[in-house]
Amino acid sequence: MKLLPVLEPVTDESCCVPAGAPVLGADEARQQAVVFKALADPNRLRLLSILKAASPGATCVCDLTEPLDLSQPTVSHHLKILLEAGLLHREKRGTWAYFSLIPGALDNVAGVLADL
Amino acid sequence: MKLLPVLEPVTDESCCVPAGAPVLGADEARQQAVVFKALADPNRLRLLSILKAASPGATCVCDLTEPLDLSQPTVSHHLKILLEAGLLHREKRGTWAYFSLIPGALDNVAGVLADL
Repeated sequence: MKLLPVLEPVTDESCCVPAGAPVLGADEARQQAVVFKALADPNRLRLLSILKAASPGATCVCDLTEPLDLSQPTVSHHLKILLEAGLLHREKRGTWAYFSLIPGALDNVAGVLADL
Repeated sequence: MKLLPVLEPVTDESCCVPAGAPVLGADEARQQAVVFKALADPNRLRLLSILKAASPGATCVCDLTEPLDLSQPTVSHHLKILLEAGLLHREKRGTWAYFSLIPGALDNVAGVLADL
């Protein structure tokens, strides 16, 4: 008598090889997404561009309204998001707040992309 | 008779030197923000991380649901955003769509940060 080989049942997932656990953990991904969310706005990118050009100097918030044609509350709102994402440093001088790019902050974001 | 020096009137803008026009143009900033918006989500970062690990190979959409514990429509939604941002390549093989990271796409985003 000839025996037929026993075949494993075909599952729904048989189309492909499982990709395994993601390399990037959930907590780390959440933290990194905050920084990319801060970068995900044209006006914030333009603010960073101005602050980078002025780097390592600090720029008064009062000087950032005109180049972007935005109101000061709007500029302050965007600067707060960039500050909370760890990209900017804020310093009070008299009435005005001065902002500067944290050295290496943008390089660190580029590093996140390289290490994904 | 002793003449006093004439002083220029102090304007509201006297606190600081104008920052000038932003280095990054409005249109370019809008385009770049789309890519950062695609990156601004923890699940999308984790998807990229899986696809990068599989690179240059392509991964079936059916293999991306389990590692992230997400439904297939949700994974497909995130993949569509990454695709539209120019980060992924999509290929249909029979019933399933296979996704792969476009070579150099993440390096290009890092380049955007370096050139801000």
